[in-house]
Amino acid sequence: MSVVAYTKLEALFSRLSRIEQALSILHWDMAAMMPAGGASSRAEQTAALKAVHHEMLTAPGVGALLDAAVSEPLDLWQRANLREMRRDWVHASAVPVALVEALSRACSASETVWRKARQEADFKAVEPFLAEVIRLTREMAEIKGQALGLAPYDALLDQYEPDARQASIDVIFQDLAKFLPGFMTQVLNRQKPAPAGPQGPFPVEMQKALGLKMMAILGFDFDHGRLDVSHHPFCGGTPEDVRITTRYDEGDFMRSLMGVLHETGHALYEQGLPQQWRVQPVGRARGMSLHESQSLLMEMQICRSREFLAFAAPLMQQSFRAAGQAGWDAQTLYEANIRVTPGFIRVDADEVTYPAHVILRYQLEKALIAGRLDVADLPDAWTQGMIESLGLKPPDDRLGCLQDIHWYDGAIGYFPTYSLGALTAAQIFQAANEAVEDLLPCIGRGDFRPLLGWLRAKLHGRASLLSTEALLIEATGRALDAEAFKGHLKRRYLS
Amino acid sequence: MSVVAYTKLEALFSRLSRIEQALSILHWDMAAMMPAGGASSRAEQTAALKAVHHEMLTAPGVGALLDAAVSEPLDLWQRANLREMRRDWVHASAVPVALVEALSRACSASETVWRKARQEADFKAVEPFLAEVIRLTREMAEIKGQALGLAPYDALLDQYEPDARQASIDVIFQDLAKFLPGFMTQVLNRQKPAPAGPQGPFPVEMQKALGLKMMAILGFDFDHGRLDVSHHPFCGGTPEDVRITTRYDEGDFMRSLMGVLHETGHALYEQGLPQQWRVQPVGRARGMSLHESQSLLMEMQICRSREFLAFAAPLMQQSFRAAGQAGWDAQTLYEANIRVTPGFIRVDADEVTYPAHVILRYQLEKALIAGRLDVADLPDAWTQGMIESLGLKPPDDRLGCLQDIHWYDGAIGYFPTYSLGALTAAQIFQAANEAVEDLLPCIGRGDFRPLLGWLRAKLHGRASLLSTEALLIEATGRALDAEAFKGHLKRRYLS
Repeated sequence: MSVVAYTKLEALFSRLSRIEQALSILHWDMAAMMPAGGASSRAEQTAALKAVHHEMLTAPGVGALLDAAVSEPLDLWQRANLREMRRDWVHASAVPVALVEALSRACSASETVWRKARQEADFKAVEPFLAEVIRLTREMAEIKGQALGLAPYDALLDQYEPDARQASIDVIFQDLAKFLPGFMTQVLNRQKPAPAGPQGPFPVEMQKALGLKMMAILGFDFDHGRLDVSHHPFCGGTPEDVRITTRYDEGDFMRSLMGVLHETGHALYEQGLPQQWRVQPVGRARGMSLHESQSLLMEMQICRSREFLAFAAPLMQQSFRAAGQAGWDAQTLYEANIRVTPGFIRVDADEVTYPAHVILRYQLEKALIAGRLDVADLPDAWTQGMIESLGLKPPDDRLGCLQDIHWYDGAIGYFPTYSLGALTAAQIFQAANEAVEDLLPCIGRGDFRPLLGWLRAKLHGRASLLSTEALLIEATGRALDAEAFKGHLKRRYLS
Repeated sequence: MSVVAYTKLEALFSRLSRIEQALSILHWDMAAMMPAGGASSRAEQTAALKAVHHEMLTAPGVGALLDAAVSEPLDLWQRANLREMRRDWVHASAVPVALVEALSRACSASETVWRKARQEADFKAVEPFLAEVIRLTREMAEIKGQALGLAPYDALLDQYEPDARQASIDVIFQDLAKFLPGFMTQVLNRQKPAPAGPQGPFPVEMQKALGLKMMAILGFDFDHGRLDVSHHPFCGGTPEDVRITTRYDEGDFMRSLMGVLHETGHALYEQGLPQQWRVQPVGRARGMSLHESQSLLMEMQICRSREFLAFAAPLMQQSFRAAGQAGWDAQTLYEANIRVTPGFIRVDADEVTYPAHVILRYQLEKALIAGRLDVADLPDAWTQGMIESLGLKPPDDRLGCLQDIHWYDGAIGYFPTYSLGALTAAQIFQAANEAVEDLLPCIGRGDFRPLLGWLRAKLHGRASLLSTEALLIEATGRALDAEAFKGHLKRRYLS
């Protein structure tokens, strides 16, 4: 039997993938390089490429090819690829091209205005732009939901994390919401006053050099990627050319460094995707939860560990030419890195309070999509939620609902993957520790190869061959639960 | 009467323009940002976008729309736009999409290998890649020539400079080739020994700051552009987001600075294109000769003038914190800037010897396309040509046929526009001097607004409304000839 239909589909999806890669580089450029005056023109470029992509993916005949390929003799990877192709096609063909273009333009406009509005704590300035993004996203969620047989918010979730559903996330988040407040109180009660850490200022150039050195130690391949600066740190680009970004604060080098290590975790996943499948749907990273698990594995499980910080402390001290200065010992750096401090900003949050930030956003975005919350009422609802969950009232919207790029860039249904990722990271690290001999002693010597080898074999190199759940079961022996995460927190903060 | 066909064409060409803009940013990224390992993947992205562009432009029905629009009631700009649309369509529809893709891929591969080959003076390493570019370009020239009723090389010329023909360029270049050797000898005989100029090193950061300051003085809008670094300086990006590049030599700041001023001339043209036509063919810069005239007007006519250097000398001295040091007076800088020195490198050549570099490349590329010269014989032919025209034998191919990116990136038929641009610049400057009151005294105060205002009215803002020749006649009162250029050289070097 021949594989005529499947072969045609591979050619189509390869070209689609090249357009996605171009879009990804253009998006990185917008965030890291583009002057402000280029925004509206870039929005049009992006909208045009997305429209072309959408038209190619939903062209007459693609559905028939997908149907025909089902009965062709495909191997395991090809069959998984066909499944992912269909997923893409169903998501895309549900939505009219005019809506895709309108949403793309609305997101670009909103993100651009947000950059300034955030700096100036001026929610009103961006409100109409966000309202338009939400309006169009609700329209899309409704249409996709009908096509997929899902509730509108589930249809959004499914874009970022295949098969994730509100009902199961609710269960996990309720479990966390039950465990964490008491745990946080326990931790705060026994937490000693902060030791005096290293004294700045920490020049940007030295921070950058340290970040680059640490990226190399973790295994980042600089022949296939770079480090730059953007408002909101992210990992973008393509598997052959991974672009990660950070932002620098001369008063606090650890914030940027931990951000760099976090994004390096994402980057290692991308750089570890299987070469031969990279321009096919099956060769993509599995989903956002697993992606986030790779960044949090690096940042939270490993780089904030005693072992890693004992290795890194002298390198950090050298990087800032701080020989002989106080505060650079591993114990002090460790205590600073596992400090729990309820605060306003999600990306600065410790791993104990972080889930509260995510759960707030999850609840608010569900309400926005359900139409139970107006965009105009978002700042008040945010403030209320922060008071209830962490006992903090943000002094302005810059420290409140303007802090994250996600909604302003149209990423709704994305936030829960951060905390699903944290739970997944804990579970993966537990399994890696059991499977890889001397894992932590290796980390303590700055040798990441054993860990990276295991991750590449179990996760990175398998891309989207299996479902998230199946990958996790094969790697860790069981489906996702919160036990490893709770155990990790108890060991780190209460022992 | 309605303009149905024309309106459909505008929508199509607007989308095509967005794809061209995306390609332009990706090309800039490849030269200025991309890690080496991203090259093959980027080549595929570029090839995919070019293929999509080509398919859209040559889709069934476009020819019929072009025919139908001819009888619709169009205004002056619309009619010119329709003429440019047809030009694009004829160029594109002549060539099969497979050839477009193959050439794009061959150029990306060749350019990437060239980067390393140039550094290592290793022509053999890039020879097969260049041979493939030439082979495919000859194929394309043949096909386009048949479609356009032109000789193959004329079909290539026409891509960069509409209506330019080998026959008329031969006449102008023969005239120049007759005038210049004797003139060069005269200049070299009376030229005094070089005065001792400013002493380096000149730190890159200070050079960059000076370049940015000078760009602003010339009128570059940083809300719509940036300055970066690449192997071969160029002006890319889009009119809303112009990306110019330079490269720095810590031993010689003037080389980079004059490069920046040159690219700023290109950038001002792009930034001055008419807002409302920027995503239509008629809103593009007219052609490469006129584009080069804008860069050479700034670099050669103005920024190497006594008046400009008298203004700039103290700013330069300040930029390098060289107060009290020798060599920074305007007269010394002026003499250094108008120094004539036959050399190996085109981009470093003075305006007297520059045409010899162009004429050599013009003759060689004509021979390559005609099949009279093999790529394998290029280094020898180059060396022979340099000995004959400038009396110099390049010690290696890095200083010979590897120095320029053009051929390796598939730009064949482009080189003659540099010298056509030099003649045009002289003619335009002559006209501007007559039309704008106190032009040079303004330049002497660092006030570029009167000049820029005239350029925007006469040239930049008219984009491709008229032919190159008609634009030049309206701006200068006559068609292109070499008189203004010769007059300029005589005034500057012999008086």
